[in-house]
Amino acid sequence: MSKKWVFRTPGIPDDFFIRGSVPMTKEEIRVITLAKARLAPGQVVWDVGAGTGSLSVEAALQAKGGVVYAIERDSHGVSLIETNSRAFGVENLRILEGDAPGVLRELPDPDRVMIGGSGGKLREIVAESCSRLKPGGRIVINAVTLENAALSVKLLDELLGGSEAVQICVARAVRAGNGRIMRGANPVTVISAEKGESNVAG
Amino acid sequence: MSKKWVFRTPGIPDDFFIRGSVPMTKEEIRVITLAKARLAPGQVVWDVGAGTGSLSVEAALQAKGGVVYAIERDSHGVSLIETNSRAFGVENLRILEGDAPGVLRELPDPDRVMIGGSGGKLREIVAESCSRLKPGGRIVINAVTLENAALSVKLLDELLGGSEAVQICVARAVRAGNGRIMRGANPVTVISAEKGESNVAG
Amino acid sequence: MSKKWVFRTPGIPDDFFIRGSVPMTKEEIRVITLAKARLAPGQVVWDVGAGTGSLSVEAALQAKGGVVYAIERDSHGVSLIETNSRAFGVENLRILEGDAPGVLRELPDPDRVMIGGSGGKLREIVAESCSRLKPGGRIVINAVTLENAALSVKLLDELLGGSEAVQICVARAVRAGNGRIMRGANPVTVISAEKGESNVAG
Amino acid sequence: MSKKWVFRTPGIPDDFFIRGSVPMTKEEIRVITLAKARLAPGQVVWDVGAGTGSLSVEAALQAKGGVVYAIERDSHGVSLIETNSRAFGVENLRILEGDAPGVLRELPDPDRVMIGGSGGKLREIVAESCSRLKPGGRIVINAVTLENAALSVKLLDELLGGSEAVQICVARAVRAGNGRIMRGANPVTVISAEKGESNVAG
Repeated sequence: MSKKWVFRTPGIPDDFFIRGSVPMTKEEIRVITLAKARLAPGQVVWDVGAGTGSLSVEAALQAKGGVVYAIERDSHGVSLIETNSRAFGVENLRILEGDAPGVLRELPDPDRVMIGGSGGKLREIVAESCSRLKPGGRIVINAVTLENAALSVKLLDELLGGSEAVQICVARAVRAGNGRIMRGANPVTVISAEKGESNVAG
Repeated sequence: MSKKWVFRTPGIPDDFFIRGSVPMTKEEIRVITLAKARLAPGQVVWDVGAGTGSLSVEAALQAKGGVVYAIERDSHGVSLIETNSRAFGVENLRILEGDAPGVLRELPDPDRVMIGGSGGKLREIVAESCSRLKPGGRIVINAVTLENAALSVKLLDELLGGSEAVQICVARAVRAGNGRIMRGANPVTVISAEKGESNVAG
Repeated sequence: MSKKWVFRTPGIPDDFFIRGSVPMTKEEIRVITLAKARLAPGQVVWDVGAGTGSLSVEAALQAKGGVVYAIERDSHGVSLIETNSRAFGVENLRILEGDAPGVLRELPDPDRVMIGGSGGKLREIVAESCSRLKPGGRIVINAVTLENAALSVKLLDELLGGSEAVQICVARAVRAGNGRIMRGANPVTVISAEKGESNVAG
Repeated sequence: MSKKWVFRTPGIPDDFFIRGSVPMTKEEIRVITLAKARLAPGQVVWDVGAGTGSLSVEAALQAKGGVVYAIERDSHGVSLIETNSRAFGVENLRILEGDAPGVLRELPDPDRVMIGGSGGKLREIVAESCSRLKPGGRIVINAVTLENAALSVKLLDELLGGSEAVQICVARAVRAGNGRIMRGANPVTVISAEKGESNVAG
């Protein structure tokens, strides 16, 4: 079954993706991440710790004519990314099984880097990403731990001279009896920066 | 000064818009709203209670070849929308000064309706919108009050047979001494529905 | 095993209670609820929809010399309340199995009412509670649905001439690898009011 | 005007305190902080960075027969603490003007330490506090920056062998027209630990 996304805005519902037991960036966090990345046709995009590939698929739809590299070390994740990529008929998505930052050395320099998972190597991945990022390029990090939120701000401030951070809490209404219970998701901190720009915000 | 938005993803930073004292839909809420609207080229979009026009401008960039109608009853808001529309070089945005739902009767039937302000007439505006919405069309309501969040779910359930609701809390890091204080924004509930689709979610 | 709570402040950790599969008011929401109730020795307190009894137990510790009535219609809940009451050596807690508002008619007029569950009869329970509340008495409602949050504000405004409402989102750090993931709980809206006082706030 | 707090539960409304321009720990955060501190009569409590003294006043009411030391380096804050202490008729509250950790050396060893402000010396203040804390004593830190949230967890894990962290977002309903707008406050992370106990949680 192909679920072509015929809209121009990102925001594919979570249940349009196959996810198995792999954690997925939820729709609302995904669209904010893509917004902070400021995608455009032709870009080279790295999606580090791609998980189910939901973010990679959406990025590929936005960066037509470019290439999105989905980096994932878990083989179950890799096969989910393949499945989801095929299901949405995406053709500019390349999947790399392996550990970042090592595997990043094989890739062309990026216009955009999105980091959703770091396997405990956030510092090294951010260093490699910031070093390889093209001038004017952007990096976006999704942090789910207290430590990575603070570390990401620190690293981007040091390496790129500034950063922006927003924390997002999403609660989703779920039917229960006659009403709708609000189900809280885990808060995510989205940290972003641009290379060679004065990041005065924040 | 023209601030052409050269990216394909929505998410223009708040301070790229002129806002005066008119309340503005913040960047993160804006991209989620646009995601729930599922915009595409050629669509007719109503933006009811357009405020500064930040959402209208972003919608117009996504719905190229279509038309976005920005409805606003406050004349100061109307002039801000004009300014922001010109600043971003948007050409498919029409501004209507007047009260909804009355002024909506002059407009062509919409593919998409976004409601950011209702001037106490949410019920009437939603009724007119749902009635005029084309089959397969979508409506998205941003509620900032407890009452409108609950009322929007109720109205869309009744009129369109279902709805999805997510509440979004955003906190933004602001530099303070050596650290970053998280500044909480007001939570917004984003309620959406599709006409003629089984809205089974939520 | 007795787990006497030797402190004066409320805030017994969740895992000090036996809970089975019954939903429990979490520690942080519990202490805010108790704060809004403004408990003191000698008070008559109704805890409607008492669940595991965690709130009842804490209320009984604060309202020494008074009586806390834990109302619960689920028999499994009733037995949990008994267990928890005994574990903390609480002696001023009476448990009533039955449906509110019916069962409330047997009780003495309250100084304080806390409503955590309403079994779809929130309107009737609030009406009975406000009518029976002693002058200067206080009522606190915990709403987990959009509908009950808005309805509670409306009812207390009508019946007691005003209300205060706060929404609380709690995320708890949970160890994961080298870091702490923030786990979001469901947001709860806590609505409160006083009888015979000008509730100007809000 | 005396505003004696006649209730046993903490949770004095914010507007019962005189605050001037000094930042104040809001009611809901205050009651959670007091809960995590687990106060009881007779305790020695340090309140570091006491601000308006709202937390000190509430702690003094809970720790009757003990002493609360309010440490504040800002002279305007010190005078507010005096005013608020007098207004509530609190007699076991001592105010120290000066910089922590230096000024802490003059104080008796604490049963409880609450840190609301650290003037950039969080590391030193936490080290002194953990070293001086009596066995079984507790420390509670309120962090409003990303950096201090992560640092507090790290310090307490190192010095006391574990910690608990919860992040609290509060939104307060404020009347606007016919409805209630939810006004978001800044999220606060409350980190706590006990000396000489296995802090397995988190």
